[in-house]
Amino acid sequence: MPNSFGKLFQISTWGESHGPSVGVVIDGCPPRLPLAESDIQADLDRRRPGQSDITTPRQEADRVEVLSGIFEGCTTGQPLALLVRNADARPEAYAEMKENYRPSHADFTYQAKYGVRDHRGGGRSSARETIGRVAAGAVARKILSLAGGVEIRAYVTHVHRVAAPSLDHFPTLAEVEATAVRCPHLPTAEKMIATIKEARAAGDSVGGVIECRVRGVPAGLGEPVFDRLEADLAKAMLSLPATKGFEIGSGFTGTLLKGSQHNDAFVQKEGGVGTATNKSGGVQGGISNGEELVFRIAFKPTATILQKQQTVNVHGEASELQARGRHDPCVVPRAVVIVEAMTALVLVDHWMRHAAQNHTFKF
Amino acid sequence: MPNSFGKLFQISTWGESHGPSVGVVIDGCPPRLPLAESDIQADLDRRRPGQSDITTPRQEADRVEVLSGIFEGCTTGQPLALLVRNADARPEAYAEMKENYRPSHADFTYQAKYGVRDHRGGGRSSARETIGRVAAGAVARKILSLAGGVEIRAYVTHVHRVAAPSLDHFPTLAEVEATAVRCPHLPTAEKMIATIKEARAAGDSVGGVIECRVRGVPAGLGEPVFDRLEADLAKAMLSLPATKGFEIGSGFTGTLLKGSQHNDAFVQKEGGVGTATNKSGGVQGGISNGEELVFRIAFKPTATILQKQQTVNVHGEASELQARGRHDPCVVPRAVVIVEAMTALVLVDHWMRHAAQNHTFKF
Amino acid sequence: MPNSFGKLFQISTWGESHGPSVGVVIDGCPPRLPLAESDIQADLDRRRPGQSDITTPRQEADRVEVLSGIFEGCTTGQPLALLVRNADARPEAYAEMKENYRPSHADFTYQAKYGVRDHRGGGRSSARETIGRVAAGAVARKILSLAGGVEIRAYVTHVHRVAAPSLDHFPTLAEVEATAVRCPHLPTAEKMIATIKEARAAGDSVGGVIECRVRGVPAGLGEPVFDRLEADLAKAMLSLPATKGFEIGSGFTGTLLKGSQHNDAFVQKEGGVGTATNKSGGVQGGISNGEELVFRIAFKPTATILQKQQTVNVHGEASELQARGRHDPCVVPRAVVIVEAMTALVLVDHWMRHAAQNHTFKF
Amino acid sequence: MPNSFGKLFQISTWGESHGPSVGVVIDGCPPRLPLAESDIQADLDRRRPGQSDITTPRQEADRVEVLSGIFEGCTTGQPLALLVRNADARPEAYAEMKENYRPSHADFTYQAKYGVRDHRGGGRSSARETIGRVAAGAVARKILSLAGGVEIRAYVTHVHRVAAPSLDHFPTLAEVEATAVRCPHLPTAEKMIATIKEARAAGDSVGGVIECRVRGVPAGLGEPVFDRLEADLAKAMLSLPATKGFEIGSGFTGTLLKGSQHNDAFVQKEGGVGTATNKSGGVQGGISNGEELVFRIAFKPTATILQKQQTVNVHGEASELQARGRHDPCVVPRAVVIVEAMTALVLVDHWMRHAAQNHTFKF
Repeated sequence: MPNSFGKLFQISTWGESHGPSVGVVIDGCPPRLPLAESDIQADLDRRRPGQSDITTPRQEADRVEVLSGIFEGCTTGQPLALLVRNADARPEAYAEMKENYRPSHADFTYQAKYGVRDHRGGGRSSARETIGRVAAGAVARKILSLAGGVEIRAYVTHVHRVAAPSLDHFPTLAEVEATAVRCPHLPTAEKMIATIKEARAAGDSVGGVIECRVRGVPAGLGEPVFDRLEADLAKAMLSLPATKGFEIGSGFTGTLLKGSQHNDAFVQKEGGVGTATNKSGGVQGGISNGEELVFRIAFKPTATILQKQQTVNVHGEASELQARGRHDPCVVPRAVVIVEAMTALVLVDHWMRHAAQNHTFKF
Repeated sequence: MPNSFGKLFQISTWGESHGPSVGVVIDGCPPRLPLAESDIQADLDRRRPGQSDITTPRQEADRVEVLSGIFEGCTTGQPLALLVRNADARPEAYAEMKENYRPSHADFTYQAKYGVRDHRGGGRSSARETIGRVAAGAVARKILSLAGGVEIRAYVTHVHRVAAPSLDHFPTLAEVEATAVRCPHLPTAEKMIATIKEARAAGDSVGGVIECRVRGVPAGLGEPVFDRLEADLAKAMLSLPATKGFEIGSGFTGTLLKGSQHNDAFVQKEGGVGTATNKSGGVQGGISNGEELVFRIAFKPTATILQKQQTVNVHGEASELQARGRHDPCVVPRAVVIVEAMTALVLVDHWMRHAAQNHTFKF
Repeated sequence: MPNSFGKLFQISTWGESHGPSVGVVIDGCPPRLPLAESDIQADLDRRRPGQSDITTPRQEADRVEVLSGIFEGCTTGQPLALLVRNADARPEAYAEMKENYRPSHADFTYQAKYGVRDHRGGGRSSARETIGRVAAGAVARKILSLAGGVEIRAYVTHVHRVAAPSLDHFPTLAEVEATAVRCPHLPTAEKMIATIKEARAAGDSVGGVIECRVRGVPAGLGEPVFDRLEADLAKAMLSLPATKGFEIGSGFTGTLLKGSQHNDAFVQKEGGVGTATNKSGGVQGGISNGEELVFRIAFKPTATILQKQQTVNVHGEASELQARGRHDPCVVPRAVVIVEAMTALVLVDHWMRHAAQNHTFKF
Repeated sequence: MPNSFGKLFQISTWGESHGPSVGVVIDGCPPRLPLAESDIQADLDRRRPGQSDITTPRQEADRVEVLSGIFEGCTTGQPLALLVRNADARPEAYAEMKENYRPSHADFTYQAKYGVRDHRGGGRSSARETIGRVAAGAVARKILSLAGGVEIRAYVTHVHRVAAPSLDHFPTLAEVEATAVRCPHLPTAEKMIATIKEARAAGDSVGGVIECRVRGVPAGLGEPVFDRLEADLAKAMLSLPATKGFEIGSGFTGTLLKGSQHNDAFVQKEGGVGTATNKSGGVQGGISNGEELVFRIAFKPTATILQKQQTVNVHGEASELQARGRHDPCVVPRAVVIVEAMTALVLVDHWMRHAAQNHTFKF
């Protein structure tokens, strides 16, 4: 269960960075969904390394293989097992990790927890674990798209100190994908790219912020107490490597407003009730209200840097670490599709939970 | 399940604001824990309304009754059922809610989700639901305290635009409880209280930020992928009414640093390995590293204000709402103990999960 | 979680035999279900002790109190908390249990597991725990009845060596309730009652078999692999005190047939496809096929007998036990409503699970 | 979740009979367990078809591939992904299934539930799904063996009308494996084999009963209410294809005894408290008491027979079915290792749950 996510649309990921493969099992997928490998591959291609000169040079085709659950072009309601082979694994490049705990990585905590760890490339704490999430997220997105016209769009708003102006519209996928940094505001995108290249040149790294918007979510998704929609989104996002914060709607800035400024007045809208503003970010009392979901996630600068660092080795002795090899100076652009995937997984799961309680029986 | 939290130390809360009572069932509590009603009452007293002139005047003793699970002063491993009677329920005071959706409350979303709602005082979306959490949290805190010397301390750092300077030490409970606003920096606390009183006088409301620190957490708690310690803390906090954001360690501000500035160097410490700084906030790769946990939660200004507001009624017609009656101008001070409770619940649950996988069998 | 049952329609029971009360929380109940305390009380009345001269003389009105989740005569989708006070608790009557492990009771195993136990009347291993199940089961039965016309009928087929002939029809509730022993075949019922009285007079006890039939279950409930309908029914039944066996359809006797005799041929029926025979007991591949569910449960003779028994005491010394006080010579007749309750809980839960996966989205 | 089993040691199986492969993910496996593919292969070899002339002639090597979770010969605490390729898949041999519902198979119920099905060889309802269970069970057995010296031994006691005499000892693995039918009483085994061959020659099939005994289980495993050890064993066994009944200890026969005959007197034993008899089958109040676990499972005759059968086709029309091709006249002998696997999975899971609640914290 520690490697599973979701209650009704449940995914279980497995696999290490430098093992033979990584993958995911999706359990509870609705039957009769038209689905092809290409639906999944499209999202994997957005996630994979080596897409541009601002990411890690690790070369991986990340070609997905569907091992079960599809028959004659449709899902059958049975588990979907999805597999991606690791091609460019170089376990020998990580010998130094065996001896030294890399600062702000999970080497030490895994060792403390399990008394053993697969040190090759971070093992399971590697970002390669997110391949399974993205593959499953692609299935969830297809469900949302076909069944409800739901659109999920994430994009980069901050890289280090470079901040994009707020968007006045729901951006198209093309706008987001226009640059390698996935910020739909082009002048800002250029500055972000320059910042990342500068960090890379210095053997350093930078972080940033992703914003995610979702439109087409019906009112009623989310549970009222613990499994609030924003709570499950927060969990989903904080479960991603390198994340340090989550906020929805007005977020931390909303604490600077008074109630009279912050409340979203209800107004009549076509199709029913809506709100005049959206400080709530699309959820009230843990339940979607039919407005756009809007939330943001903070990503710390990548822990792997190519500079000498003070550390402690596995024997508890003071040591120094000089990382070599491949290095991703900023994970934020590639995380955009991962954020979208997690969002889709949360929404499909809550949609099914909502329907189960409220639409199974008619009274 | 929508009203349950935790996997091994699981709580289920129930009850509405103006029903006969609220309560909680704790399932999975370790046996042989010395426990008295007074252990639980102490935390309920910190949460209950009417404690000071900056909270709601609703009068509730919130006296807990233990209905099961304790025998001769100790837990038995069987479910603890805890009950608190609602004393000052005034369902008639909320007639207007029956007709109008209160802005930024859950009236509309509950109606949209369930097709029915208990409109009296917000029903289950009322903050009274958190009584069960605080009662269960008190049990969890006692476990942590007896078993591991873990200390959890939350306090208010921001109310509206009043911000406390950073603390240079782990505050004592007495420091936090010194003022009704629960900010351990006294000059700031005074300003916060003035701000809250000003908002109340204007029929308005304010929000703020709570910081929570935990010391004594052993390295190894938290799961590596989805159920990361920070992910479950984020979910726990975003499941609280009125929360809009969560950040751990460096949080959103950490995105402004470079990797070389952000990484926490490992150093030798008494008792083993530690870090020189704590940008990570006590977790790395989702697992506690033995340093202090530090995280912050944003609370929006209370949605209930005593000013006329535009809204829509249950018939979908434009309407106006003028709230009357009791009003809590700032929920942040009372939320301190709720934050501590949720933190304790997450930690006990993860401690049990960690032990199950790693200490059940010896190889 | 050890005291919870169900995934989407989830119940959590709590309370000890001689504590202040017992109860249950139902989480996930569909909203808008018309529900009154009397709906629940009717089933509790069938379960409660003191109904006739063949059960325990413990006097309990078992009056249910609804503490939450109903508003203006309907469920709201929020947790239903149901409470029953223990009236005739006599903790002092059980002093001997404190010292001696009662044979074939749970005294020793609770002590071994928890290192502590509430010895008064068996604490939580008492049949009083099933009050919460019956109360929740009554809600589930109302859902099934209103939403799908599903009828659940359990009855006694064996008491000790007295066996009823097979029924040639689905019995009415009146037929089952016609005698205190709840066997719808009257001549057999009389012999069963005589057998129970004889056992009681000898300070001894007897067991028996309950058969349960369900009609109106649509095809499609149950999951194909682990959560098969028969698997969850088996678990539900084996979770009842004193049960030692479960069989569905042809059961153990079916092993004496050949495949050519055992297979249920498909035939055209009004409303679609049906089977000519029902050796399958209404499930194929773990999923209901639209035929009647038919299964049987074995109950051992009650462990409490009023005869001297050899045992070991809590100090590990050989000892003798002479039970005194109230004594239920045969639990089988009262278990009929408990079997029906568990069946209803399984069916509602699976119905919701089925709908969630298959009817939430349309492709 | 419908394809997952266990709460802390959780397995998720996937794959269809005639898809590319079948497999399992094990989540929650303790770290540092020495484990090799050969540990798993040994049990798969006992399960695989083509072992003898009394099973299906389908030829499958069932070679397991470990895709993740093992590092340098030990588990790491991360998910174990295990894969077995389908070699002898012949989807074309099953064309008739596409049109006709096979009697007492899952074709109709899958179609009714999902509106779609992979008809090739039963898809997921095929016994090939149990490969994942057996592979995971082998890991669980290794844990039990190394950590606690627990031994699990299942064997065939009945095939059709041939019944073995009761065993007076815990049989060795060699005794069970001595014949293809896995009945440790050789004269009976010969008769069973003759019976199976006779059924095969007639194009018919037979069922039978498996008994399973476990020694070395410590007192204290199992939860007191819903997740009783016998309840979870019953669920595990009824989740196996072709099972129709489960009984533990005295089972259905125990209903013929009086309490004074059925109760297991406690006696002093080396190592503590034990019972003089074992009608309880090793569990009391849902919790293991340290005695041998003893339970039995009824398997119906295989549904696939090579005789003409009446049925209905997918258009709802009366039809006839004449199965061709490979045919397993009795699944009972091969099910022995599957029963052992499920038993091991239940025990490891409960052991971890028990330890979590009772041994995580010391008071």
